[in-house]
Amino acid sequence: MNYRAIETSGEYVARLETGADWRQEIEALAGAVEADGAWFTALGAVQDAELWFYDQEDLSYEPITFDEPLEVASCVGNVSILDGERFAHTHAVLSRPDGETVAGHLNAATVFAGEVYLRAFDASLERAHDERTDLDLWPL
Amino acid sequence: MNYRAIETSGEYVARLETGADWRQEIEALAGAVEADGAWFTALGAVQDAELWFYDQEDLSYEPITFDEPLEVASCVGNVSILDGERFAHTHAVLSRPDGETVAGHLNAATVFAGEVYLRAFDASLERAHDERTDLDLWPL
Amino acid sequence: MNYRAIETSGEYVARLETGADWRQEIEALAGAVEADGAWFTALGAVQDAELWFYDQEDLSYEPITFDEPLEVASCVGNVSILDGERFAHTHAVLSRPDGETVAGHLNAATVFAGEVYLRAFDASLERAHDERTDLDLWPL
Repeated sequence: MNYRAIETSGEYVARLETGADWRQEIEALAGAVEADGAWFTALGAVQDAELWFYDQEDLSYEPITFDEPLEVASCVGNVSILDGERFAHTHAVLSRPDGETVAGHLNAATVFAGEVYLRAFDASLERAHDERTDLDLWPL
Repeated sequence: MNYRAIETSGEYVARLETGADWRQEIEALAGAVEADGAWFTALGAVQDAELWFYDQEDLSYEPITFDEPLEVASCVGNVSILDGERFAHTHAVLSRPDGETVAGHLNAATVFAGEVYLRAFDASLERAHDERTDLDLWPL
Repeated sequence: MNYRAIETSGEYVARLETGADWRQEIEALAGAVEADGAWFTALGAVQDAELWFYDQEDLSYEPITFDEPLEVASCVGNVSILDGERFAHTHAVLSRPDGETVAGHLNAATVFAGEVYLRAFDASLERAHDERTDLDLWPL
């Protein structure tokens, strides 16, 4: 169990810009409020989406693209520093008109409408390479 | 990127009433604590559900009804003022006995059991008509 | 509407240990920070999972096992005291390489990678038997 106590320096609600990229908008929010560590939840709708699935045997991400309008039924993630840049690690559950869902690691998606609640931490969260998983994780 | 710094005036946990409406219970909680702006996450189970999917071309909501018991695997949303009333914008991921899911904008659902964490903001969040999407969004 | 105002005594981010049990890791976090009441959201990936579905007629949980790698697209839950022990009530949405999802009450899952944000409350949340649902709920 690796954990760290953090304190919140600011709380924000944001409306994501129609036509912009979902993840980049969250990174822009973190940048605007100068947060190098943050946690968020969000909801809304997107015009398309690219999800990534991590292959736990091959240790590589496989992308899947959905070129269709989808509701963002759930979105949970965090902002930390990866290779010197703010990175929003973003997971999402997306749904179709009949309620059917697709979900995973959200790399990119075109915002139709989006509402985010973000807590900026007063501490920086840094990612570093983890040998076992070949992912960039927090060495807390 | 439209965002706004907010401050939390109170934090609440709530147990939703069996047999009541899921969204109305959250709006009743916001009313009881006099919150005109709030963010929540929740989990539980419902006896039925009505989801809405927003048609991004026709700019209208299409309802889908599920008359069956479902787990609430995820629920994220916010409370703001729409046409002078408190409105809980609620997205949810629901699941069946075999794990299969349906998800979207939750308009109504009969609570079987529900647990909510809500942060009441000291500011009011107001929705207003957005021309591009024809939705009621925050003009932050 | 049964609700209770609570205050947060500490905020934590945690990285769940690869190979450990997802729910037990969250309970270990709550134990490490001595929280008898907490709320969390999380994301990551698991190597397998056991979900439970509550049968609202038979009033009993039915387990389903998934012996495959899955993304944790969403995870929401809380920590409270059940029969004298810390219990992490955990709901999750899991996804496959093609984006397909399964979801429900997460009893157990082997962590591949996991990131959690937990708010520890200064109050204890206790569960007690609820006659109507035959579940252990908060008598708030």
